[in-house]
Amino acid sequence: MLNITGNYTDLYQISMAQVYFHEQHNQTAVFDYFFRKNPFNGGYTVFAGLDTLLDILEDLHFSQQDLRFLAEQGFKDDFIDYLADFRFTGTLESCREGDLVFPNTPVVTVKASLIEAQLIETVLLNTLNFQSLIATKAARIRSVAGGATLLDFGLRRAQGLGGYYASRAAAIGGFDGTSHVIAGQDFDIPVAGTMAHSFVQSYEDELTAFRAFAKDQPDNTVLLVDSYDTLKSGVPNAITVGLDMAQHGQQLKAIRLDSGDLAYLSKQSRQMLDEAGLEHVKIAASNQLDEHVIKSLLEQQAPIDVFGVGTSLVIGRPDGALDGVYKLAHFADKPRIKLSENIQKMTLPGHKQVFRMTNAQGHWIGADVIVLAGESAPTEMHHAYEPFKSMDLSQLTATAMHQQVMKNGQKIITHKTTNEIAKHVRQQMALLPGDYHRFDNPHRYKVGISPALKQQRDKLINQLRS
Amino acid sequence: MLNITGNYTDLYQISMAQVYFHEQHNQTAVFDYFFRKNPFNGGYTVFAGLDTLLDILEDLHFSQQDLRFLAEQGFKDDFIDYLADFRFTGTLESCREGDLVFPNTPVVTVKASLIEAQLIETVLLNTLNFQSLIATKAARIRSVAGGATLLDFGLRRAQGLGGYYASRAAAIGGFDGTSHVIAGQDFDIPVAGTMAHSFVQSYEDELTAFRAFAKDQPDNTVLLVDSYDTLKSGVPNAITVGLDMAQHGQQLKAIRLDSGDLAYLSKQSRQMLDEAGLEHVKIAASNQLDEHVIKSLLEQQAPIDVFGVGTSLVIGRPDGALDGVYKLAHFADKPRIKLSENIQKMTLPGHKQVFRMTNAQGHWIGADVIVLAGESAPTEMHHAYEPFKSMDLSQLTATAMHQQVMKNGQKIITHKTTNEIAKHVRQQMALLPGDYHRFDNPHRYKVGISPALKQQRDKLINQLRS
Repeated sequence: MLNITGNYTDLYQISMAQVYFHEQHNQTAVFDYFFRKNPFNGGYTVFAGLDTLLDILEDLHFSQQDLRFLAEQGFKDDFIDYLADFRFTGTLESCREGDLVFPNTPVVTVKASLIEAQLIETVLLNTLNFQSLIATKAARIRSVAGGATLLDFGLRRAQGLGGYYASRAAAIGGFDGTSHVIAGQDFDIPVAGTMAHSFVQSYEDELTAFRAFAKDQPDNTVLLVDSYDTLKSGVPNAITVGLDMAQHGQQLKAIRLDSGDLAYLSKQSRQMLDEAGLEHVKIAASNQLDEHVIKSLLEQQAPIDVFGVGTSLVIGRPDGALDGVYKLAHFADKPRIKLSENIQKMTLPGHKQVFRMTNAQGHWIGADVIVLAGESAPTEMHHAYEPFKSMDLSQLTATAMHQQVMKNGQKIITHKTTNEIAKHVRQQMALLPGDYHRFDNPHRYKVGISPALKQQRDKLINQLRS
Repeated sequence: MLNITGNYTDLYQISMAQVYFHEQHNQTAVFDYFFRKNPFNGGYTVFAGLDTLLDILEDLHFSQQDLRFLAEQGFKDDFIDYLADFRFTGTLESCREGDLVFPNTPVVTVKASLIEAQLIETVLLNTLNFQSLIATKAARIRSVAGGATLLDFGLRRAQGLGGYYASRAAAIGGFDGTSHVIAGQDFDIPVAGTMAHSFVQSYEDELTAFRAFAKDQPDNTVLLVDSYDTLKSGVPNAITVGLDMAQHGQQLKAIRLDSGDLAYLSKQSRQMLDEAGLEHVKIAASNQLDEHVIKSLLEQQAPIDVFGVGTSLVIGRPDGALDGVYKLAHFADKPRIKLSENIQKMTLPGHKQVFRMTNAQGHWIGADVIVLAGESAPTEMHHAYEPFKSMDLSQLTATAMHQQVMKNGQKIITHKTTNEIAKHVRQQMALLPGDYHRFDNPHRYKVGISPALKQQRDKLINQLRS
């Protein structure tokens, strides 16, 4: 259906690459991947997609079909020959997949020949922007869901094939399972799902439908109870089946509510199940859920054990995109900067590294500092854009955020399972102080720059402006 | 990377299918694909994704890897054997790809054995919901852009692999080209793109960068003029290069503005280019564009010839999803209905067909009527949910919207190119009266039901309620 080959890119990357190739303008370049704003007006971003990206880069090449198409577009034979042998042989320094990261931080730094660095831009952005968006959405939902089970039900409303990595990112952000079978299979995520309304409708009556399911899959019976009338028909029929099953030493696993007032219906259903002695039967709920609805349901003490979340999760509603960019920071032994009328759109020149600061107790204090590569942790940092703001770091401990993850085009970190990355996210979320988790006006995590980086940037700006 | 096989689905489809298989509960079923709300609070939806879907269905099968995974999940051997031989052998009746369609209309009707119909649900929804969303967004942008060239620049912010069909749908909705090379190649869409800021930054100065590009690709030179200062540096340098090129019998194709006040900058740039005798040089603009910004720019008479649209287009902002559903309407020789507290969430029972009404002059009058399959066009229609509303159709002409597009699992319509489908969209958009094109409170297209369908539905409701 779709293979990620060299042509999974924007044409301008190839247009630029041909110029570089013909001009032999191909010294070593350093590009930074960063974003300018946390999604969802939130206080953090979960970095996801790295493992996917590294796998893509290790294998990236132009297919014969790609090369033919480019020749038809007028690219020159010598350049097409170059592309035929193209492999990415550069180096990536990166935050760890599952790290919490913040605006303006270089999350990934690519060091490669200019052509190679340019030819991976689009697939890098496409992969990291989307998975980080969805992992962040999932983490927000997890942050309010307590111990409830969270299931990704989004494939039908996902953005086409985008649903594939959406399910991976949802698991990284804290979802326990997915309805999406092929994602479960490829990313080792538990899969879940039992019945739709059509199942119930296809039988003469609801009880017959429920019994048919329980007979066939007694270990995995979750009955959808809202096809006719939740409290008058669905739950009573589920109780009948649950009691039958109990007599045969089986357990009805759950009922699922998919419409109506979920707080009210879950409370009534819980009471009816409990009164029938079916305390073990869990309650699952779905229907237009997101972090705000789930938070509200749990604040109302709705006894819901399992939440199935669809559209909002897999399309990252309402934002739909993370604004990550990929900017040239160093080329041919010189730091490079992109000027702008707006200082916040200027880039930070040079090959850089990031430190996260912790206090004497080992707690995060809400500050990262960007430094020049090779620099040790500074004793103070400056605000990147406000000239009179700075912060004393002398009493704090600095931990380097970047590690080399790819060298000479080869992945040099071990594969982490989705589950391992999810565990890392949980640990990071526990380290981030509560004020940054808030949905409304979260505390702003400080990302500053070292005095040496500031000096280099200001010097370049003055040079270019004169 | 990702093949669409049988496991590209929600697990519950497979769970239900096993029950149906074991129970031999597998008579013929009819399912309708429809949606309840036009996206973007708009007055229409462009139906897209049909050709993609038919190709997927013709080839749909469970891979060995799929089957192994399902066996591990506890599905039974006899059912796995059934899935090993699974092919979709059903029938699809459908509106034409590129048709304008409206809420509650059965856009596609699937007739197949219950198992087969169930097993294609997720991929059908995933494909049609997304492509229709993006084609609609593209058509809205096209509707305000007049004769300007529209280019899809969205891949870097697309929802991962979702970008692939996003580019197809954008072309169907009215975009002239895409930056996305592999989509251009696979869907025969013109590709476009020349340079990024990194290109300009990588040279010692802007003029050197512009000259390098013009030298290498004189037939396709579009210079990005905002890296340093648009009017003081970018445009003057572009003019220098444009005049040089003219001396060599070449033409600078365009400049591109990617930041700042696009109305102001385009007017100033146009004047500067014209005064230099470079009237042929076009102006392209990009940066956070959507239908509202483009409309405003053109109302301000910004002399922009080419618009590059990214994020908003390919993620279908702000909606991000079309709410299309797939509901059982007929099974085992009986019409089926899904009840709900809310009459608008009840489904229309039975195998159905749709007519579009036109007046004596052949103009659309903003009404479709849903009828039972086999019924001829009725002389009146009822509002689907408001019992006292009806409409006289006796003076109107009815055109059937559905045609058989797949029979016994084989596609029976000829392949249409993206360009042919786009042409059909343009024709349909010209047929839809202006009030339905409006962005704010567009006129509501009426979708009614025939007296016979209403009778069937009301009878079923009464039966089930008693």
